[in-house]
Amino acid sequence: MYEVNAPPPGVAAALPVDERFMTLALEQAARGLGRTAPNPPVGCVIVQGEDVVGRGFHPRAGEPHAEVFALRDAGERARGATAYVTLEPCSHHGRTPPCADALIAAGVRRVVVAALDPNPLVAGRGVQRLRDAGIEVTVGVLESEAVRQQAGFRSLIVRGRPWVVAKYAMTLDGKVAAPREGNGVVSGLKARALAMRWRDELDAIAVGSGTLELDNPALTTRGVPGGRDARPVVFDRRALSNPQARVWREGAVLISGLRADTARHEVAGITVLRPEALPDSLTELGELDIGTLLLEGGPTLMSAFFAQGLVDEVRVFLSPKLLGAGLSPLTGRARPMHEAQALRDVTVETLGPDVLITGLLHDIPRV
Amino acid sequence: MYEVNAPPPGVAAALPVDERFMTLALEQAARGLGRTAPNPPVGCVIVQGEDVVGRGFHPRAGEPHAEVFALRDAGERARGATAYVTLEPCSHHGRTPPCADALIAAGVRRVVVAALDPNPLVAGRGVQRLRDAGIEVTVGVLESEAVRQQAGFRSLIVRGRPWVVAKYAMTLDGKVAAPREGNGVVSGLKARALAMRWRDELDAIAVGSGTLELDNPALTTRGVPGGRDARPVVFDRRALSNPQARVWREGAVLISGLRADTARHEVAGITVLRPEALPDSLTELGELDIGTLLLEGGPTLMSAFFAQGLVDEVRVFLSPKLLGAGLSPLTGRARPMHEAQALRDVTVETLGPDVLITGLLHDIPRV
Repeated sequence: MYEVNAPPPGVAAALPVDERFMTLALEQAARGLGRTAPNPPVGCVIVQGEDVVGRGFHPRAGEPHAEVFALRDAGERARGATAYVTLEPCSHHGRTPPCADALIAAGVRRVVVAALDPNPLVAGRGVQRLRDAGIEVTVGVLESEAVRQQAGFRSLIVRGRPWVVAKYAMTLDGKVAAPREGNGVVSGLKARALAMRWRDELDAIAVGSGTLELDNPALTTRGVPGGRDARPVVFDRRALSNPQARVWREGAVLISGLRADTARHEVAGITVLRPEALPDSLTELGELDIGTLLLEGGPTLMSAFFAQGLVDEVRVFLSPKLLGAGLSPLTGRARPMHEAQALRDVTVETLGPDVLITGLLHDIPRV
Repeated sequence: MYEVNAPPPGVAAALPVDERFMTLALEQAARGLGRTAPNPPVGCVIVQGEDVVGRGFHPRAGEPHAEVFALRDAGERARGATAYVTLEPCSHHGRTPPCADALIAAGVRRVVVAALDPNPLVAGRGVQRLRDAGIEVTVGVLESEAVRQQAGFRSLIVRGRPWVVAKYAMTLDGKVAAPREGNGVVSGLKARALAMRWRDELDAIAVGSGTLELDNPALTTRGVPGGRDARPVVFDRRALSNPQARVWREGAVLISGLRADTARHEVAGITVLRPEALPDSLTELGELDIGTLLLEGGPTLMSAFFAQGLVDEVRVFLSPKLLGAGLSPLTGRARPMHEAQALRDVTVETLGPDVLITGLLHDIPRV
C-alpha cells in the first residue's frame, strides 16, 4: 500500500496513489453485486488530499453510473480532486451519457482506475478521453481485485455467457453428502453465512433435478440484511420436476432437454430454455442478463459442468470431520493424477472451524 | 508469552516463567522423535537469568535422559538455575537413576515442566520429589504442545498401543488417487518434504497389500538430513505380497491373517504378526515398542482403521486441483452427515500451493 505524502507548505501535492481509496471504491462497488447485470458493479470515491468528499456506486442497469453518484455527492469539492474508479469510465453514450465527460466537466484533476473496460465500445477509449482533456490517469491500482469483482460482467461482454462459480462444502475425507441424504449440514455457521452472502451477490443459482427432488430447496437468501434472492436455474433435462416445488418463483428458469414436455412448467409461468447442449444453456442464460452463475450442485450437475470445462471458479468449504461413506463432489472420466486441473489465484481462509479454498480454472477476461 | 523482567540491582530475580525457553526445550526434544520409543522424546534447557547454559535431549532408549545431558552441558552453572523440561522428571530407577535426583544434586533452584508423566511409576511423584527437596516447580507451560509431541509415548504407556496418524494428500474434489494408478503425485514439493520429515519422526509406517502391489514403495526417508527410516508395517492378510518387494528391510513387519502361509516371508527374515483382529495388531505393534504409527494408505487400509475407531490423528494435505474420477480417502458404512466424526485441536497451514489440515479424533492420554 502506498503512503500519502503531505505536500511541503505552499507546494501543490503530487497526488500520490493511495490503494486505501481504491479499497473504499471496491467496497462501494460491492453494494451493487447481484443487481447490475448486464452492467458491471462499479464504485467511485472522490478524494481531496486525504479526505473522501464523494462516494457512489452503480446500483442497477438503467440507473446512473458510479461516477455520477460520487460526483453528485462531492458537489463543488470535486474540482481539483482525484477520482478513484474500479472500472475505466465509459466513453460512449449508452443509456446514460459518458462518465468520462462527467468527470471532465466536474473539473477533477486526476483519475485512478483499477481496471480497463473490456467492452469493445470502451477498452481504453475512456482513459484516452480523460487524458485528452488534460486529466492525469493512472490505471492498474488493485486491478486483480477489481477484475475478480467484475468477473460476471467481463464474462458476459467478452464470452457471451455467465462466469460460473462452483461452490460446495466437503468433509476432510472428500464427501459432500451422505448417501441418499438431502440437506445434510456440512459447514459451520460462519461458512454458511458467507455462502448466503454469495446468493445475494451472484445473479443466479443453478441446481440439478436430483437436488430438487431430494431437498426441495427454496434457494433464497437468508440472514443477509438488505439481501435479495438470486434467480433459480434448474437443470432438469426431462422436465419431470414438480412445478409446485419451492424453487419456482418469479424469474426462475428451467433448462430442459429439446424434447421434454414442459407444458406444466410453462403454465406455471416458469421461463423454459431448450438448449441443444450444456454450453448453449450458458449462452442462453447470458442472453437473460445472467452474468454470474452459482453452481450449488449436486455432484451430477457439477460433474457435467466440470467435464465440459464450463466451471470458471471454485469455492470449497472444507469441514474438519470424517464421514466414511458418501458422495464425492465430482465424478467423471478417469485420467492420471498429473492431468488434474490446477486452480489459479488460490485463496485460503479459515472461517470458524472450516477452511475456505477458492481458485480459478479460467482467466477472467481482460482488455 | 511472558516477559523476562530484569531483577533490580542487588536483588535476586523472581525467576518468571518464559515460554521461549520451553520452546527451546521442545526443539531439543524433537531431535529424539522417532528414536526414543518406548521412551518419550524429552528436551531440557538450563537457564541462568536470560542465558541458556545447558541443553539436552533424550536420544534413544537406554541412553541418559534429557536432564542428564543438559546438566552435564551446564556443569557448575546449573547451581541456582532454572531447568525447563518438556516432561516431568522421573522419580524411579529405570535403566538410569531418577532425573529428579540429578536436578536436586546439581542445585537447580527451580524446575519448569511442560506436562506430567502419565507413566504410573511417575505421574506426579517426580514433581513431588523436587518440591520435597525445596525446589520451586511450575507445571503446564506449553503443555498442549508437549503432550502432542509425546503422543506416541503416552499412547503406548496408557493404552498399550501406538498413536495412529492417518496421512493422505487429496485434491480439492476429494480424490487421493486416480483409478488404478499408483504413485500419482498429489502435493507440491513443500508438502512432500514435510511428509518425509514425518517418516523420520514417527516410529513406523503402515501400508496395505494394495499399495504394495501397485506402487512397490520403499517407504524410506528421503531428503531429510540425518534422517532415519521408520519401520515398515505391511497389512497383508493373505500374505500374498512379494517377499522381494522393496519394503522388506530389517525391522519390517508383516501383519498377516491367522491362517495365511507366511513361510516365504519368514524365510526372508521378516517379522510376522498374526493378530486375531485389527485392534490386536496395534497391541502387538505396541509390544514391538512402536509408539507412533503413520498410516500412509491406501483407502482400504485407511477405511478399515477408521471404521474401527483406530485412527487417532489425521493429517491431510489439500492440493488446489480437480481430478474428476478417482479414489476417495475413506469409504465405509453409510451414516448421516450429522454423525460425521469431528476433529479436535484442528490446525490449518499453507505449504506452497497446498493446505495442511490436521486434527485429533481421540484425546492424547494425560495424567
